[in-house]
Amino acid sequence: MKYQLFDMDEHKMLSKGVCERIGIDGNAKGSSGTKKYDFNVKMDNHTDAFRVIEGILTEGENKVLDSLSDIGAVGHRIVQGGAKYTKSVLVNDEVIKGIEGLAELAPLHNYAHIQGIKACIDVLGKTVPQVVVFDNAFHSTMPPEAYTFAIPYELSMKYNIRRYGFHGTSHRYVSGKCIELLGTEHTKIITCHLGNGCSISAVVDGKVIDTSMGLTPLDGFMMGSRSGTLDPSVITFLQRKEGWTADETDYILNKNSGVLGISGVSSDDRDVSAAIKQGNERALLARNMQKYQIRKFIGAFIAAMNGVDAIVFTGGIGENTVDYRKDICENLSFLGIDFDDEANNRCVKGVQGEITGKKSLVRVFVIPTNEELVIAQDTLELALKQ
Amino acid sequence: MKYQLFDMDEHKMLSKGVCERIGIDGNAKGSSGTKKYDFNVKMDNHTDAFRVIEGILTEGENKVLDSLSDIGAVGHRIVQGGAKYTKSVLVNDEVIKGIEGLAELAPLHNYAHIQGIKACIDVLGKTVPQVVVFDNAFHSTMPPEAYTFAIPYELSMKYNIRRYGFHGTSHRYVSGKCIELLGTEHTKIITCHLGNGCSISAVVDGKVIDTSMGLTPLDGFMMGSRSGTLDPSVITFLQRKEGWTADETDYILNKNSGVLGISGVSSDDRDVSAAIKQGNERALLARNMQKYQIRKFIGAFIAAMNGVDAIVFTGGIGENTVDYRKDICENLSFLGIDFDDEANNRCVKGVQGEITGKKSLVRVFVIPTNEELVIAQDTLELALKQ
Repeated sequence: MKYQLFDMDEHKMLSKGVCERIGIDGNAKGSSGTKKYDFNVKMDNHTDAFRVIEGILTEGENKVLDSLSDIGAVGHRIVQGGAKYTKSVLVNDEVIKGIEGLAELAPLHNYAHIQGIKACIDVLGKTVPQVVVFDNAFHSTMPPEAYTFAIPYELSMKYNIRRYGFHGTSHRYVSGKCIELLGTEHTKIITCHLGNGCSISAVVDGKVIDTSMGLTPLDGFMMGSRSGTLDPSVITFLQRKEGWTADETDYILNKNSGVLGISGVSSDDRDVSAAIKQGNERALLARNMQKYQIRKFIGAFIAAMNGVDAIVFTGGIGENTVDYRKDICENLSFLGIDFDDEANNRCVKGVQGEITGKKSLVRVFVIPTNEELVIAQDTLELALKQ
Repeated sequence: MKYQLFDMDEHKMLSKGVCERIGIDGNAKGSSGTKKYDFNVKMDNHTDAFRVIEGILTEGENKVLDSLSDIGAVGHRIVQGGAKYTKSVLVNDEVIKGIEGLAELAPLHNYAHIQGIKACIDVLGKTVPQVVVFDNAFHSTMPPEAYTFAIPYELSMKYNIRRYGFHGTSHRYVSGKCIELLGTEHTKIITCHLGNGCSISAVVDGKVIDTSMGLTPLDGFMMGSRSGTLDPSVITFLQRKEGWTADETDYILNKNSGVLGISGVSSDDRDVSAAIKQGNERALLARNMQKYQIRKFIGAFIAAMNGVDAIVFTGGIGENTVDYRKDICENLSFLGIDFDDEANNRCVKGVQGEITGKKSLVRVFVIPTNEELVIAQDTLELALKQ
């Protein structure tokens, strides 16, 4: 259970942290300003975890509130809103049922989300507005030719199978910032959210027309431990040879594939960089594959938009790994990208900036994402309406 | 069993035809020049079929040879040469074993190919040179970042799982023609083979650097009845819900998906066009999806090559369906494509031509493919060396 507490008058984050191993043993770590905390504490369920966070926020050296009653509203990130929720909404019983009804499409996530919402209601009471912000909502503007899979149509209808897309709050935040920077309404933007999970979106005039993640966050290009999209016959070939069930297939393609599966080293970009320096060829292959696949997705989405004004990099890798950005941009020089090495090296560790020169026909930006702020803003807006 | 007979002094095709329903009842149809034939005849096996072809070629009104001994050499198309065969080779016992050894990667095709080769040897004797031309050979120049799937590396090694690509003789023929037309050695070309099966290749200086088909011809974008590449979680989701085995999954994604699966009408482009005219919305969605996916693949491969000099359309749809070419090119106008509507309308039914104007920054061609001539040329070359 992750949290951030915002003072929305100043858009200032007061405290953040995470409760882990809920129901196992329990650990809480985080910070309020410069004061850090990290301790073990037994948490049987999400309500226990919320009580732990209450203690952190209202007592001791991480204290930032006199009491939990100072909290005006709570926003929850929900991975899967299906085609039902195309924007953030206030929580009520019907919405909880709605999220439950979509659990089939994200069984690991949606049930946990509901536990989180119920824990908040337990601790804060029913009068504090709760808002749900959906990870796929920003992608709901995609046209059918982008969101439909080329499987028998009846099956897509029967099970609501389609491209939903994820990382929506991130793509929304950085594309919004980029539109501000471009200073014009009519824009064609590629947003690259590159972290342990990765996705790329094509955003025209502020609206997503295509995105790389699909029914689940497994789709797209290869990620830390995920395969991304695949030749379906690779899957059936391996199922026949290795006797994998559907669940085993899911597990291996989500957990043992991607950069980890190719490199044999790690799903973490930094470990892979270290291995490349030591001459590890499989680590180098993994890096080259990922950069190549990102480049191809950017190219595909430029074709989808029939042009591009700006490309944005964000997420852990996108904000920090200078060689990804350099390699990708320099191999897209046909677009008239005038890459600025110095600016690129400057934009790390949360520094926002433009990494192309004035002559560049396509502008490239590094924009640190802030998904929590998007959630907080939606929450404030809806809470005020209540 | 399909055949074409060439006079290689004049590159002239003398007779062509197909024996179908071998081992069931048997039908032979084809033509020698303007003389057509179409009759039922019992054929128990491929040797019987070859005897039927012998009769057609040496007797009656389709006669073009005095005897089969006038045949100087035979070339065979082989779908899967794996990583082992990167160019055409003369047939000997070792090569037959080699093709058999790769049958795991193309079980339906490679065993049938061997039957065809053995039938030829039965009828023509061992002294007539036989050559095998591999459908994936032209793609063997791909770099590892293009041909490696992001699954656990050990599995790829264990089973030789990689992107092989198909339609190689077609991509080779039309890219070769295109290089001639461009009149320069250094070229970046996208070749689009669009038929019932479809694939797109990126060809730099005459060498493939990437192609859309993968381990099998199921991969890439949606085709007549094939899904193309998919979010793997769509597959596992459906396997759980519908109880599909790996074989059933293969069947549905190969036979009931793609344009047929979306439209519910047909896998044939012409039937879909007719349905669209009648206002069938699913037919229109299928068409829009396929055009959109082709455009995205072209964009991805342009990014892969960091630019493009020419795009080539070929195959049954590529050579004839003017609205595909128009729609795709007009939605890639950001590349500086100056599309020529009139030229586009002219290039149908085997007419080769350029469908962009003189000012176009990227040249677009329609080049009717000739896979059989490529096979005949390789066969001649190797037979002369014997």
